Amino acid sequence: MGAMLNAPMDEPEFRSIVGVMRADVSWGDCDPAGIIFYPTYFRWFDAATWALFGSVGRDLRTMIESGYCMPLVGAQCEFVTPAEPGDRCEVHSRITRWGGKSFDVTHEVVRADGTTLARGLEKRVWGRHVSGPGSPMRGQPIAEDLKALFRAT
Amino acid sequence: MGAMLNAPMDEPEFRSIVGVMRADVSWGDCDPAGIIFYPTYFRWFDAATWALFGSVGRDLRTMIESGYCMPLVGAQCEFVTPAEPGDRCEVHSRITRWGGKSFDVTHEVVRADGTTLARGLEKRVWGRHVSGPGSPMRGQPIAEDLKALFRAT
Amino acid sequence: MGAMLNAPMDEPEFRSIVGVMRADVSWGDCDPAGIIFYPTYFRWFDAATWALFGSVGRDLRTMIESGYCMPLVGAQCEFVTPAEPGDRCEVHSRITRWGGKSFDVTHEVVRADGTTLARGLEKRVWGRHVSGPGSPMRGQPIAEDLKALFRAT
Amino acid sequence: MGAMLNAPMDEPEFRSIVGVMRADVSWGDCDPAGIIFYPTYFRWFDAATWALFGSVGRDLRTMIESGYCMPLVGAQCEFVTPAEPGDRCEVHSRITRWGGKSFDVTHEVVRADGTTLARGLEKRVWGRHVSGPGSPMRGQPIAEDLKALFRAT
Repeated sequence: MGAMLNAPMDEPEFRSIVGVMRADVSWGDCDPAGIIFYPTYFRWFDAATWALFGSVGRDLRTMIESGYCMPLVGAQCEFVTPAEPGDRCEVHSRITRWGGKSFDVTHEVVRADGTTLARGLEKRVWGRHVSGPGSPMRGQPIAEDLKALFRAT
Repeated sequence: MGAMLNAPMDEPEFRSIVGVMRADVSWGDCDPAGIIFYPTYFRWFDAATWALFGSVGRDLRTMIESGYCMPLVGAQCEFVTPAEPGDRCEVHSRITRWGGKSFDVTHEVVRADGTTLARGLEKRVWGRHVSGPGSPMRGQPIAEDLKALFRAT
Repeated sequence: MGAMLNAPMDEPEFRSIVGVMRADVSWGDCDPAGIIFYPTYFRWFDAATWALFGSVGRDLRTMIESGYCMPLVGAQCEFVTPAEPGDRCEVHSRITRWGGKSFDVTHEVVRADGTTLARGLEKRVWGRHVSGPGSPMRGQPIAEDLKALFRAT
Repeated sequence: MGAMLNAPMDEPEFRSIVGVMRADVSWGDCDPAGIIFYPTYFRWFDAATWALFGSVGRDLRTMIESGYCMPLVGAQCEFVTPAEPGDRCEVHSRITRWGGKSFDVTHEVVRADGTTLARGLEKRVWGRHVSGPGSPMRGQPIAEDLKALFRAT
């Protein structure tokens, strides 16, 4: 799995801002072994990507009203240390690749004591419902303006 | 809670068909106490209502394409016997009230050995996105034709 | 449903502290109608109850290590106003009834603009795994010390 | 992602039985874009792995009572074709690698019309709560007896 997370990028490295989303491990996020049920991490990754976009003015409402969406083509996660009920965590997210119509978001889940619990990657398409709500989604070229919003300064 | 489940109906009693949906208790449906995490039952109830409508020709795709929806105004559940990982269950669902623009669906979760695990009630509106996908939903009068589909013969 | 939420109490009214848990509506919490999928509220209620107990020193870890749990005998929710992706909410929770071995937690989901989205009730048992982890849970008498932790001053 | 799914194996190829788990796409499994919310696939993968073990006599109850568990070290999924509400699917699962104390399960989600919707991989540890329920989990050597249960004949 590690190889994927360090994959060569399509372009010269992109220095991304880092979004931080708070995420605590609830009772219901955990399974009979008393540790986090792993699909929870992917729920967090999805929310963290939307939060990252929200931090640059592309919040959920704006995205939905303008017909934009970010469907996935792939997702993965390494589970490093088991999370337990009550753990206070942050998801640190950044854009690690921009392609023509797709991009990668890398996530790291860090517990309050600094321990890394999980590392993940989402591969997403930049899409739009071109004929309004309910119409089919089509991949859209990613404009330089969009990328610039996420560039760390 | 029991009082609610036996509440007097708005109309003379409706003899409904009974839908049966298979639902097994997975590892991830359970919590650190080793029993079902209770919101799981409500996920099942929602799916069971859609399955009940599907059984009379109003399946998910048909409902979505014609703009119909069934938003909730209330839901409740009594938890009778704790479900455990691997339990094989059925959700038995029927319409127990038709109002002007709303209706009730009653659900019973029964384990393979015949034990009742939970009893629930959903109060739903019969609605439609009147101006196409993404447009606001409005409550619709429930036609006799619709009710007839669910009448036990 | 309303009748349940205003049900007479078993004891003279208990003036409870009010716990506040932040809960935002994520993309994945919503359904194809573009509004919250209703079991999400029950996930929030469960987390809000644990947070309320955490606020008086009975956090998840402490509860689990000492073998205490709070299984449900019933839950209900009225859905007042539909929540949409990106809505910023709070869940306000308080104890509204103490019985011998059971108690009620009442929840209200309030959007950032002050609108009430949902009102819910959980009926729970105060239980303990008396013979250690994995052993059966038994209802426990609720001590005055426990109740006192939640009394508003 | 594809590279991972075709990764060289630690041992000569293992010809595994193929488990089949039914999984239908419910209303609540989908998001405001009207397609499946991707963590749903990982919930299915987890359930499909337990079902595969159940098919050889290692069902959830047996595993839990004997203290065995299968925590994850990694998981990934390629999303090939978007699933929609009401889609009837199967998850086809097989063991594609046995290591000393770990193993891989490969999953394919196939819609009723034969279309592949998703392909996934779980990397799991074979573990046991060595000192009873609630005690820490330790990786266990995978016995030939266990592997033999999954060998296709």
